[in-house]
Amino acid sequence: MAYTDRVKQILSWYPSDSPGTLTNLARLLNTGTLAGTGKMVILPVDQGFEHGPARSFGPNPAGYDPDYHIQLAIDSGCNAYAAPLGFLEAVAGKYMGEIPLILKVNNSDTLAKVANPMSAVTSSVKDAVRLGCVAVGYTIYPGSGARNEQYEDLRDIIAEAKSYGLPTVLWAYARGNMSKEGETGIDVIAYAAQISAQLGAHIIKVKPPQDFIEQPEAKKAFEKAGIATKTMADRVKEVVRSAFNGKRIVIFSGGESKETPALLEEIRQIHQGGGFGSIMGRNAFQRPHAESVKLLKDVMNVFAGK
Amino acid sequence: MAYTDRVKQILSWYPSDSPGTLTNLARLLNTGTLAGTGKMVILPVDQGFEHGPARSFGPNPAGYDPDYHIQLAIDSGCNAYAAPLGFLEAVAGKYMGEIPLILKVNNSDTLAKVANPMSAVTSSVKDAVRLGCVAVGYTIYPGSGARNEQYEDLRDIIAEAKSYGLPTVLWAYARGNMSKEGETGIDVIAYAAQISAQLGAHIIKVKPPQDFIEQPEAKKAFEKAGIATKTMADRVKEVVRSAFNGKRIVIFSGGESKETPALLEEIRQIHQGGGFGSIMGRNAFQRPHAESVKLLKDVMNVFAGK
Amino acid sequence: MAYTDRVKQILSWYPSDSPGTLTNLARLLNTGTLAGTGKMVILPVDQGFEHGPARSFGPNPAGYDPDYHIQLAIDSGCNAYAAPLGFLEAVAGKYMGEIPLILKVNNSDTLAKVANPMSAVTSSVKDAVRLGCVAVGYTIYPGSGARNEQYEDLRDIIAEAKSYGLPTVLWAYARGNMSKEGETGIDVIAYAAQISAQLGAHIIKVKPPQDFIEQPEAKKAFEKAGIATKTMADRVKEVVRSAFNGKRIVIFSGGESKETPALLEEIRQIHQGGGFGSIMGRNAFQRPHAESVKLLKDVMNVFAGK
Amino acid sequence: MAYTDRVKQILSWYPSDSPGTLTNLARLLNTGTLAGTGKMVILPVDQGFEHGPARSFGPNPAGYDPDYHIQLAIDSGCNAYAAPLGFLEAVAGKYMGEIPLILKVNNSDTLAKVANPMSAVTSSVKDAVRLGCVAVGYTIYPGSGARNEQYEDLRDIIAEAKSYGLPTVLWAYARGNMSKEGETGIDVIAYAAQISAQLGAHIIKVKPPQDFIEQPEAKKAFEKAGIATKTMADRVKEVVRSAFNGKRIVIFSGGESKETPALLEEIRQIHQGGGFGSIMGRNAFQRPHAESVKLLKDVMNVFAGK
Amino acid sequence: MAYTDRVKQILSWYPSDSPGTLTNLARLLNTGTLAGTGKMVILPVDQGFEHGPARSFGPNPAGYDPDYHIQLAIDSGCNAYAAPLGFLEAVAGKYMGEIPLILKVNNSDTLAKVANPMSAVTSSVKDAVRLGCVAVGYTIYPGSGARNEQYEDLRDIIAEAKSYGLPTVLWAYARGNMSKEGETGIDVIAYAAQISAQLGAHIIKVKPPQDFIEQPEAKKAFEKAGIATKTMADRVKEVVRSAFNGKRIVIFSGGESKETPALLEEIRQIHQGGGFGSIMGRNAFQRPHAESVKLLKDVMNVFAGK
Repeated sequence: MAYTDRVKQILSWYPSDSPGTLTNLARLLNTGTLAGTGKMVILPVDQGFEHGPARSFGPNPAGYDPDYHIQLAIDSGCNAYAAPLGFLEAVAGKYMGEIPLILKVNNSDTLAKVANPMSAVTSSVKDAVRLGCVAVGYTIYPGSGARNEQYEDLRDIIAEAKSYGLPTVLWAYARGNMSKEGETGIDVIAYAAQISAQLGAHIIKVKPPQDFIEQPEAKKAFEKAGIATKTMADRVKEVVRSAFNGKRIVIFSGGESKETPALLEEIRQIHQGGGFGSIMGRNAFQRPHAESVKLLKDVMNVFAGK
Repeated sequence: MAYTDRVKQILSWYPSDSPGTLTNLARLLNTGTLAGTGKMVILPVDQGFEHGPARSFGPNPAGYDPDYHIQLAIDSGCNAYAAPLGFLEAVAGKYMGEIPLILKVNNSDTLAKVANPMSAVTSSVKDAVRLGCVAVGYTIYPGSGARNEQYEDLRDIIAEAKSYGLPTVLWAYARGNMSKEGETGIDVIAYAAQISAQLGAHIIKVKPPQDFIEQPEAKKAFEKAGIATKTMADRVKEVVRSAFNGKRIVIFSGGESKETPALLEEIRQIHQGGGFGSIMGRNAFQRPHAESVKLLKDVMNVFAGK
Repeated sequence: MAYTDRVKQILSWYPSDSPGTLTNLARLLNTGTLAGTGKMVILPVDQGFEHGPARSFGPNPAGYDPDYHIQLAIDSGCNAYAAPLGFLEAVAGKYMGEIPLILKVNNSDTLAKVANPMSAVTSSVKDAVRLGCVAVGYTIYPGSGARNEQYEDLRDIIAEAKSYGLPTVLWAYARGNMSKEGETGIDVIAYAAQISAQLGAHIIKVKPPQDFIEQPEAKKAFEKAGIATKTMADRVKEVVRSAFNGKRIVIFSGGESKETPALLEEIRQIHQGGGFGSIMGRNAFQRPHAESVKLLKDVMNVFAGK
Repeated sequence: MAYTDRVKQILSWYPSDSPGTLTNLARLLNTGTLAGTGKMVILPVDQGFEHGPARSFGPNPAGYDPDYHIQLAIDSGCNAYAAPLGFLEAVAGKYMGEIPLILKVNNSDTLAKVANPMSAVTSSVKDAVRLGCVAVGYTIYPGSGARNEQYEDLRDIIAEAKSYGLPTVLWAYARGNMSKEGETGIDVIAYAAQISAQLGAHIIKVKPPQDFIEQPEAKKAFEKAGIATKTMADRVKEVVRSAFNGKRIVIFSGGESKETPALLEEIRQIHQGGGFGSIMGRNAFQRPHAESVKLLKDVMNVFAGK
Repeated sequence: MAYTDRVKQILSWYPSDSPGTLTNLARLLNTGTLAGTGKMVILPVDQGFEHGPARSFGPNPAGYDPDYHIQLAIDSGCNAYAAPLGFLEAVAGKYMGEIPLILKVNNSDTLAKVANPMSAVTSSVKDAVRLGCVAVGYTIYPGSGARNEQYEDLRDIIAEAKSYGLPTVLWAYARGNMSKEGETGIDVIAYAAQISAQLGAHIIKVKPPQDFIEQPEAKKAFEKAGIATKTMADRVKEVVRSAFNGKRIVIFSGGESKETPALLEEIRQIHQGGGFGSIMGRNAFQRPHAESVKLLKDVMNVFAGK
């Protein structure tokens, strides 16, 4: 399939990367229903590790099975499937590249509460190579007192991943020295997107930003510059702009599970604001199979402008 | 272009460096409008990481775009453009050395407040080599309880950078165990310049020093030696003298955004005091394009003695 | 200096190189009288090693001095100066990048006659980094029974040089299992240019091809395809075409010393045939200083289309 | 110059060191006015880093210049010049071994007050090799809660220095969990000298001990053994005895700046007590040039027994 | 001892070397009777290895003892003593730097005749560091079919030696594919000096050149350029010129043992021709002690211009 102009344009925003890294980035952009549109929907399943199995897979017990998720991603036409080492080990050698894989190399469980959130690096870039992944995923917690350590880990992971031609997908969850609302405040999410881009992420994943501003200095700046924050579309626009004026791929999580109409409305707003896509886990795999396939296809239709 | 006597003189102050490191130092001195004068104006854009995107780029939204800044540096005839990894990745492979690049390898966000300021090392000397940079930049916070760790990190970075022929530009911001005024006190800034030079920095960046003395012992020494601190020119002279009697390149930040006349008057004083140039970020890129090009050119005219 | 469209076009032919390597390639294209034209004239002085001092420097004894040659390259506006380790060691720390340097990492003396010509690797890529060079130079002898060993050495040197952002200039001298005429036969030179490009050279240096075809199979092919070989311009055109249809920089040696009018006529033909420039040693430095500066400037005028 | 019997005797006290390390130790003993006497006067200039530039160089502003100090050491016939990285970088490649250099690899600024004094390791043994130094210098703070970390750092530095044939000069400043008087108490200084020798230092630098005993257990021991502490000569004798019965070179700092007669009297006592020499910074370089040369020569005359 | 202008001038010819390497080069120039003159006489004793003990030490059996030679070098005021590992191991820890040592790292015995002469690398640069040497020595045989291997070994040894601040003394003996006369022919010796300089040697040792030209092409070049070769002074001048126009230190061996008057006449010619000194083994140590001391002093007097 010849590359579309849009895909070529997006790849041109990464002029310092090797052909190998760009090739894998292109694979992400050229797979599934949204192939060639420059948009992407990724199925991530790290909740088993992050929230425990019953909370994650109880609602739809088929999800206890690692084969379930990759097949769901294929059936629904996703661009990629992302998971921790174990889930990928369980399927990579069987599906052998049928859908692009992203190895989430760090993960955090919820068995111990800590003041400064910090994930464990539970697998390696070499694992990603071995499993035929097209990218690695990493999570940072801007706002955590341990963030500098995370940024430095990430620096090494990005460098190693590049050396194998793998781009990096960065989960940026603001968390730590801030209010609960602040974690999804528009100023904080936009700042997290900027940090992610400056750290060298190829694809940035943030939560949908809310109409709240955490930092007093940011409040002044938003008001002075007249940056609209009322609608989700407004806010997504600001987040995308904060990721190098839209020259980095920013995708949005579905967040906590919610009703389908509310979810699709949010997707529409993200699309309208210039978001590059969604990374949707619980809202997808916790529904029955047919329903989740339909939902993902509906989401893709939004991003396809249909 | 044949080297001027002034450039040769400046290079002679670094007699222990390899030809490779001196070659890159010369590139910084021989680029742009001030090429050959021994003076330099550098455009640094790390504020997106340090202060967040809205505060940094809201005033002139063109600055959200990574292409904007390198083009601004070229258009205005700067000696170099300095930025964190992400901003350089976004342009290095496109501009291919059209202007000397400085990779700021450590950076600090303002999402978490800490007692002892400390930046994360978010990129590496090898990244600087890969991107074709002519120097690396590093920030120390003399006064921070974590300063020794920073000095030791810096030691390794300087040594690695030298092994690739890259000089080091040191951002020295006194911060930590001192009063707010003390951070820009003449004794503290002069001391920070001395520390920077002793640590082996090739180019030292400090804030314009104010007529305030933080340390009682320094107060006595200034008085006894009759060191003038009244005008900015007086103070810059003392800072430059503190950097090996002017045998290390010391440049001054523009500091917080201010009105043009005040800014240019400060530049005149810096020039009069023997400062080697300016590193001007917010005061440049937060203005509209034409205005910032004009400002930078006016600043260069001051340093060119026009 | 803003990059010209021609320089940007040439750099676009190397899309898989790192920004660092492209930056140094750009430095070669943007220095000296021909800066920005996409043409280059390089002064190489390896004859002291290759032919001995009296044969090389006897005609103009100023050339015994290592300072002479780099100054000649500067005075005449060359793009770069190329030499073995010793000559560069003697000047690099003194000139500190005043003109781009190319370290010829392998060299061959003529004290022992061997069946299969083979140079010794007398310096390293790390030496080139230490001395602030913008490229490394390497010589292959296609036709030598030892050529495969040379190609494999070169493979490692190109890879190491790239890791430091250094492009490779390849001296391709056909020599060995062929007739004396064959060494400069059009089929052989074109073939050597093709091999050089396939080996990954950024800049290829060959001798001016003569109207002679060494290989019977080539003779048939030239005839069948109607490739003109009568004039030097015809032959240069074929050589350049053989270097990826002109998408690799091919420059031509001046060859043995000859009279100025003949030399300039040859240059005109090379220019007419699309050659990217000249690398001229003996014909330059064996003349008295003023005469050689004039000659090099005349050569540059030809390539500048003046 | 043939080695004197005294130099040979001193070197015989280090029978387990390599010829390389002994060679450099001998260089220290065989340079300057005191060459061959077994005595040494060293000029150390680390005060710019330790106390700030105005306090250090304000009294004699010529000292802002790095060239000033090495030239002062040469002019006055010192055995060696010791300084942090920056000051040595600024002169090593220019003086090329004209006087033995000692790189002080760790240093502490006074911008932040800390409970447990600890220097940063601001340069490396490899830097000392690169700069042609004959020894490395290191500071420990016996009494600091961080002393064990310092001893362990030192262990590695001594071992690495030996691998390059470099002896170690140890600055032993008791500081931390003791009274202000205790820092220069005879028991503490003697103890610090013993620790230094046990840690493997080749040359030990302590402050002139005062007639004060910090530790009750030491008080008893001094009294019981009838160790005289009344005169400086008495106390120096005890300190030297504590450094392996005089089989390690112990030199004494000049301490805070004081009047010349008092200073020379102190030197006489140190000499009388068997001290091996002085390491004199502020008392030297803060005087006008002629005066400081005279002072240093007077000091050397004392140690030369003239 | 302050450096003389001549020593500073000579050191300025090595502008790309580290301060450490220049410091050791200066030690060679600043030791012994000729200290500061820019001339040097070195005592080399590798004949035990190269020719066997009886041939070497039979004439003066004191020479069987390793202590004999270093003491001879000291007694006669040489700049340095050069020998293979064993001889240096036997004295370095005893003399501890009393005279600069040069470790000859490769050596060749005469027990097996080979077509292509090649020495074994019998010790390492690290040995030189451990023994406190100021330089390493290496032998190449230009003309040997194995010369390329030697040049490549040398490349690595020079690079490693530089990393420890050690310069390299190169023994260049043309030997192999040439006539017996050719080995000391003026063209060959001059060519060997040029090759040595291009390979990066700091000090070059060749045999006194004879009035014979080996290579036909060289013969033409000598004649055309009118290079005088009649007297030894003429020929030495050409050899020195061939070593970067006199910007590399070239010293001459005494060659086979001969009568004192003839020897001193040769030295006078070498001095007159601009040679930097002599490296004299057999002619020194095979004489009785007093006689050899006298001879060496007479030689030094010639180079001192007395």
